Amino acid sequence: MHDSIEALTQRICAFRDARDWKQFHSPKELAVAITAEAGELLQHFVWQSNAQSEERAVVHREEIASEMADIAILLLEFAEVVGIPLGDAVAAKLERNESRYPADKAFGSNKKYNEL
Amino acid sequence: MHDSIEALTQRICAFRDARDWKQFHSPKELAVAITAEAGELLQHFVWQSNAQSEERAVVHREEIASEMADIAILLLEFAEVVGIPLGDAVAAKLERNESRYPADKAFGSNKKYNEL
Amino acid sequence: MHDSIEALTQRICAFRDARDWKQFHSPKELAVAITAEAGELLQHFVWQSNAQSEERAVVHREEIASEMADIAILLLEFAEVVGIPLGDAVAAKLERNESRYPADKAFGSNKKYNEL
Amino acid sequence: MHDSIEALTQRICAFRDARDWKQFHSPKELAVAITAEAGELLQHFVWQSNAQSEERAVVHREEIASEMADIAILLLEFAEVVGIPLGDAVAAKLERNESRYPADKAFGSNKKYNEL
Repeated sequence: MHDSIEALTQRICAFRDARDWKQFHSPKELAVAITAEAGELLQHFVWQSNAQSEERAVVHREEIASEMADIAILLLEFAEVVGIPLGDAVAAKLERNESRYPADKAFGSNKKYNEL
Repeated sequence: MHDSIEALTQRICAFRDARDWKQFHSPKELAVAITAEAGELLQHFVWQSNAQSEERAVVHREEIASEMADIAILLLEFAEVVGIPLGDAVAAKLERNESRYPADKAFGSNKKYNEL
Repeated sequence: MHDSIEALTQRICAFRDARDWKQFHSPKELAVAITAEAGELLQHFVWQSNAQSEERAVVHREEIASEMADIAILLLEFAEVVGIPLGDAVAAKLERNESRYPADKAFGSNKKYNEL
Repeated sequence: MHDSIEALTQRICAFRDARDWKQFHSPKELAVAITAEAGELLQHFVWQSNAQSEERAVVHREEIASEMADIAILLLEFAEVVGIPLGDAVAAKLERNESRYPADKAFGSNKKYNEL
């Protein structure tokens, strides 16, 4: 089981550095790659209903796992490159979301915080 | 320090469930949201050079951290919804990349594995 | 009424050239900008149902028009930069789609051509 | 030569209607598809330098034309579905950009209008 953000990030950066790829991996290039990979994940679900997307995630499990991993690898490296620990950024955003979306007000609603 | 993928995922799902949002969060809807958030991250770097993107990541650190976190939160939830542990998917993909991109062959190259 | 692809493209390129922006507008940079703008359009519809998206397109008509225009402007310029007339590319693709998606086989189906 | 936005839009909608696809093509679904196709275009240029992207646009001309067309077809249909003539939206945005980016102030600069 691979649960540590830091340990995964170290593996990713070691992989990159063994190939001398840091020269290609500016914040911009990583953001470009993240978006392109997100597009690949999204491609699976174009025109699908939500119910069909659940089925697809089962049938195409290997490919979906691979797309997920591509985004995660790039995002973990992005966080390292810009020097922002990803776990801390997530925790901080969750706290902000707690106040933006009070549970009672946001319950069962798909509105954005500024439209609640 | 927030380093555990599982612990973060649990917080994210608790947040979601306290708002009864699972009904909106099919694999498809999560993939849509991930791509939209990736687009927001990318927006920071449009027309910028790579050097400018490094500077921007420093000057706009708070916003960049927030965009990173949005993608990560949605990706962690996506992994939970489709039942694929994200850390395991990352580790498996890194192994695959090791064989796709042998360090000696890929050293200093920005080619894709099928063009190496 | 502005119906001519060529006339619009000429205006877009004149706008660009009056600002000496061609130096920033490589095929890659234009593709990055197109994707970032597509993300902005998509942002409007995150978590929305299809019915809600129809309503949103009415209520936020000005913003939607602006996002549509951003994508179109960049795509028209992209076509000019790579030297492929956009209208011809569209016509060629429609013909290809005619054979990929025979009307009788694809009728009422949201499957991809390779899954039909 | 296919230069008329209206004529292309009519062909696209006839193609759609002959397959009874309007049921799948809400504004949201079209925005999802546009973004996924933009991601496919972007995929061509990930990790590439701007100079490499120019070369790639020549070598992979057929694929690039196909990706461009996919985005254009969906965008033309989107415009029809939301009832906003695309050419008019483009012309209106160009006028707005004229005042946002005065030629003398924006000359040779890659800054956004709100940072000029």
